[in-house]
Amino acid sequence: MNAFGKLFRVQLFGESHGPSIGVVIDGVPAGLPLTPEEFREDLLRRSGGKKGGTPRVEEDSLIFLSGVVQGITTGSPLAVIVNNKNTISSDYESFKNTPRPGHADFVSRQKFGGFSDARGGGHHSGRVTLALVIAGVIAKKLLAPAQITTKILEIGGENPWDQKLETAILEGDSLGGVIECRVSGIKAGLGEPFFDSLESVLSHIIFAIPGIRGIEFGDGFSAAKMWGSEHNDPIVSLDGTTSKNGSGGVNGGISNGNEIVLRVAVKPTSSISRAQRSINLSSGEAEEFKVTGRHDACFALRVPVVLEAAVSIALADLLYQTSAPHIWGHGIVVK
Amino acid sequence: MNAFGKLFRVQLFGESHGPSIGVVIDGVPAGLPLTPEEFREDLLRRSGGKKGGTPRVEEDSLIFLSGVVQGITTGSPLAVIVNNKNTISSDYESFKNTPRPGHADFVSRQKFGGFSDARGGGHHSGRVTLALVIAGVIAKKLLAPAQITTKILEIGGENPWDQKLETAILEGDSLGGVIECRVSGIKAGLGEPFFDSLESVLSHIIFAIPGIRGIEFGDGFSAAKMWGSEHNDPIVSLDGTTSKNGSGGVNGGISNGNEIVLRVAVKPTSSISRAQRSINLSSGEAEEFKVTGRHDACFALRVPVVLEAAVSIALADLLYQTSAPHIWGHGIVVK
Amino acid sequence: MNAFGKLFRVQLFGESHGPSIGVVIDGVPAGLPLTPEEFREDLLRRSGGKKGGTPRVEEDSLIFLSGVVQGITTGSPLAVIVNNKNTISSDYESFKNTPRPGHADFVSRQKFGGFSDARGGGHHSGRVTLALVIAGVIAKKLLAPAQITTKILEIGGENPWDQKLETAILEGDSLGGVIECRVSGIKAGLGEPFFDSLESVLSHIIFAIPGIRGIEFGDGFSAAKMWGSEHNDPIVSLDGTTSKNGSGGVNGGISNGNEIVLRVAVKPTSSISRAQRSINLSSGEAEEFKVTGRHDACFALRVPVVLEAAVSIALADLLYQTSAPHIWGHGIVVK
Amino acid sequence: MNAFGKLFRVQLFGESHGPSIGVVIDGVPAGLPLTPEEFREDLLRRSGGKKGGTPRVEEDSLIFLSGVVQGITTGSPLAVIVNNKNTISSDYESFKNTPRPGHADFVSRQKFGGFSDARGGGHHSGRVTLALVIAGVIAKKLLAPAQITTKILEIGGENPWDQKLETAILEGDSLGGVIECRVSGIKAGLGEPFFDSLESVLSHIIFAIPGIRGIEFGDGFSAAKMWGSEHNDPIVSLDGTTSKNGSGGVNGGISNGNEIVLRVAVKPTSSISRAQRSINLSSGEAEEFKVTGRHDACFALRVPVVLEAAVSIALADLLYQTSAPHIWGHGIVVK
Repeated sequence: MNAFGKLFRVQLFGESHGPSIGVVIDGVPAGLPLTPEEFREDLLRRSGGKKGGTPRVEEDSLIFLSGVVQGITTGSPLAVIVNNKNTISSDYESFKNTPRPGHADFVSRQKFGGFSDARGGGHHSGRVTLALVIAGVIAKKLLAPAQITTKILEIGGENPWDQKLETAILEGDSLGGVIECRVSGIKAGLGEPFFDSLESVLSHIIFAIPGIRGIEFGDGFSAAKMWGSEHNDPIVSLDGTTSKNGSGGVNGGISNGNEIVLRVAVKPTSSISRAQRSINLSSGEAEEFKVTGRHDACFALRVPVVLEAAVSIALADLLYQTSAPHIWGHGIVVK
Repeated sequence: MNAFGKLFRVQLFGESHGPSIGVVIDGVPAGLPLTPEEFREDLLRRSGGKKGGTPRVEEDSLIFLSGVVQGITTGSPLAVIVNNKNTISSDYESFKNTPRPGHADFVSRQKFGGFSDARGGGHHSGRVTLALVIAGVIAKKLLAPAQITTKILEIGGENPWDQKLETAILEGDSLGGVIECRVSGIKAGLGEPFFDSLESVLSHIIFAIPGIRGIEFGDGFSAAKMWGSEHNDPIVSLDGTTSKNGSGGVNGGISNGNEIVLRVAVKPTSSISRAQRSINLSSGEAEEFKVTGRHDACFALRVPVVLEAAVSIALADLLYQTSAPHIWGHGIVVK
Repeated sequence: MNAFGKLFRVQLFGESHGPSIGVVIDGVPAGLPLTPEEFREDLLRRSGGKKGGTPRVEEDSLIFLSGVVQGITTGSPLAVIVNNKNTISSDYESFKNTPRPGHADFVSRQKFGGFSDARGGGHHSGRVTLALVIAGVIAKKLLAPAQITTKILEIGGENPWDQKLETAILEGDSLGGVIECRVSGIKAGLGEPFFDSLESVLSHIIFAIPGIRGIEFGDGFSAAKMWGSEHNDPIVSLDGTTSKNGSGGVNGGISNGNEIVLRVAVKPTSSISRAQRSINLSSGEAEEFKVTGRHDACFALRVPVVLEAAVSIALADLLYQTSAPHIWGHGIVVK
Repeated sequence: MNAFGKLFRVQLFGESHGPSIGVVIDGVPAGLPLTPEEFREDLLRRSGGKKGGTPRVEEDSLIFLSGVVQGITTGSPLAVIVNNKNTISSDYESFKNTPRPGHADFVSRQKFGGFSDARGGGHHSGRVTLALVIAGVIAKKLLAPAQITTKILEIGGENPWDQKLETAILEGDSLGGVIECRVSGIKAGLGEPFFDSLESVLSHIIFAIPGIRGIEFGDGFSAAKMWGSEHNDPIVSLDGTTSKNGSGGVNGGISNGNEIVLRVAVKPTSSISRAQRSINLSSGEAEEFKVTGRHDACFALRVPVVLEAAVSIALADLLYQTSAPHIWGHGIVVK
């Protein structure tokens, strides 16, 4: 299913080469000022056209279908679409029969019986993250003054701006990377002890981003190598600030008021123009082939703004839920 | 909230030193044979009493409250409890005021206004995973003949059975570890393209296990260091088998028929008997103290069976959902 | 929130005088043939222009934004919109201050702080049922060969086609009515013993239709006047057929294989052109006023197709859930 | 499924003749004082032993398994059970083969393959409403000072306390009735415009009560016979008070601040000791038989407190959701 959230609810739709990509957001409060300009920066960050990004550049003009009148939200579902242009669908015809390594071609055929839209990856396309970014812009407004920032820690295992990316582009190969996200200004109390732990909810939405292979919070996998006396992190002030924030802002599934810190591993772009092998599902024969068309050498470069969006959406929904009364006497108001 | 699943639904309850730990499972099919003996092995694996485990050993006798008659499930909600015994509550009185580093003491106080049960960590206790293991035993039966196995890859960053654990026990310190889980026999098609990707759903439930700091699938964080030509994984037979399974059995959020492979990082036990610092929330003064009582030097040793349970529950729920008709003509049956 | 369903999931959006009314349907199986022509009849039945219906007639041209390629569904979310035309918004400006009796003007102002779209009732408009009808057409296809039919039992308490409606139109007054819905061909086993009883799920979605004041199943309110020996309904054949079907096809919350029979009470249209009283929320003064503009004298005449849609959507979702294994050995399939 | 609610979440379990009936409530705020005494009155109202009620009288002693320490809730899931006693199971053996008219015997056999617990109706038993009443007591506390009251309007179509009930008891027959529920003190703004309309949510949970055949709000089915000028209900004061409250406290799916008024039709008890006909599912032969054992001549007499519980649970959950920010600037709070 393609919906996320309990009270701030995001429903995605769209295929890469279909008419439109879109999102319906249920639970946007009424009275929120919202202008197309506020989306521009994040949409630009997500779009291609930079070094290591796909040459497919689109003017992603937002069309608001409902939920906003004269730049103010109405409280009813907010629907926004972006129409697709600049698509070259002939590139994709053969993948149904010869599934590309690392792509969803095979599983999509298995799950949807060959009816899924193969063009541009269809609904599996990274282009659908456009809808996530749109919802993310609204979620960020709801979270303000909390601040969400991301940083590319490494590309291909090295400093992000070194020579390796040039090599990948020249050789028709690709790279992945590690992105860090930090959120400051979130109060203690978000998340639940068990199934809706803060890490559970964040990782749920983050693994919706295509190509994520791992996630860690705070000290993450390094924590597994530490002594307890080394990883334990004493509280040093009454607001809950700890000395090292090795738990990444979460204890027992609940935000502790420190900065939320998480890192994700992004795999290398699956589409490469170097020769690869696959199997022809009709003939059963192995085949060598090259993926042509326009592709990111490193789509991890475009992930930061999508990651921010995912994190913001999850936190906004948790904040809504936290306004329900966790403590008797707080929150329930009758006439 | 403490419920997980859409059609195979697990609701947990209980505090470490309260009367009982329990679970209600909604969606267990009718007619499933179920005997207390089938739970014994997994409960034993979860319980303490081994090297590196807490000396608190309990006979975890299951009491079935509903949903099973003469060893056969009825199709109505299955409720199972285990009564708590062998608790020493006086150990925990002071933690409300002086929160233990790494524990949920502080966040619980913030979220629940000081009313949460501090004894033994209350509902945050690892003891609540007992309920998860109970549900896991049933989920495993539903998944058979699929096989779920786990392996401790490292403790404290090293080979699991080396000297380091002895040192931790002797010095009153603690260690974490890395656990791998593999599931074979899951057909292609589980999981959804976006928000309910297989990784999303699995990580959601896995991060409910206390003390998990990170998760990765297949090549995981290593994938972020590879070239695309290196990480890409050609399909080599018509059933979808790939040459390296670097994606850990998942493409585009959907199982691809290969073994599902994931690894989690478990932090070192927070409770250590070495001196630590914290803050007294009443006086605002820093305090040095030691956690007394019985604790695991390395609770990661007990995580494998809990991880298996979490994975099984999530997969069972996804299997149920996958029996809904993804392809027209399959699944919808009217009279 | 504006979403319904667990596995066949319908998300509505749109305001009466906004750019578009639309629906996103998640869970449509792949491979379902779907042409605009199949929607025509139900859309025509819902639209105005007949005696007792509003003169606002729209060509409701469907625009498919996603989920269908060359007339075949892809399995990804199906998004459909209808653009609004033929709106006269000036009619509605004053209602924010002087809420119309029977309308949502007052509650909308209270809930959304005066920011909701007042034009044409905004998101509260009966026009949003257009989206429900679109989803209903698809749901009906999934339910085939089950048959859903509706019948207007009475208008204004009398035979539907008598003189009373003429009077209402002439005098600028309005009428309500009673509609019956019958579904044949649904197998026994849909619905759950408690909270998701068949009646629960059906009434949940049916009360989403604006203007419904009551619902009853089978003998309904008459059952409360009967002796048990009179209401009890013996099974007369092995397929569960009962002699009178007084329970309307449901026992214990679960379909029993007989025809599902329910009736709804539809209130008279709130907008009438006769003089009415209300209160001016700014001045606190009582005010007399007339609702001008175009309105149905009896919108109950347009409810049947909306009711069919609501019932079909709920049944389709329950059928999906019923394909999960209620009996051990049925439904769970692994490799 | 047997769970209800989004933020105040109730999970039921138990069979009539199994070990226990119970409920897990997730989302109870921490710090709520809760003593067994507070449950006594409502449990007594639900239990049998009065004229027209079953002679099976049980001491329904509550056992709190989790979520409360020294009479104060902890904020973690509250689990409560009542152990079953005083059961005579031999009464029920034959019903699997010869399903009783009006009972769930047949559908349960169809849905659960003959594995459901037939004794006392198993999970379909009215006894499971005990769990609903327990949850209702807590919900009422959360709603205070709002007041929920119920009234039996008619039994067998007549004044509740007339001769007809005596006749039913004497002749081994049964009766149904009509119950009204009123809630005062609920502010305007509960419920959502479409699928989660106040009527939708209330009817969803109310139809979970066994034996409900219909529900209506305000003027209900009578509204369908009125002129619009007659049913329309002008607001007469600034707080939204209307002159007649014919809409039963709801407009457009949202509470309007007036008293919420609804009525339900309860069918006659299915179990009667007069001779009835059914079919033997093994032989295919018609059979005449009498239901022996202890039964209510009119279980509608016990419905009021169950109805109050259902209404309270739904309203408490909606109140929680309404504490989420419907208007920008209200509700979202970050550090």
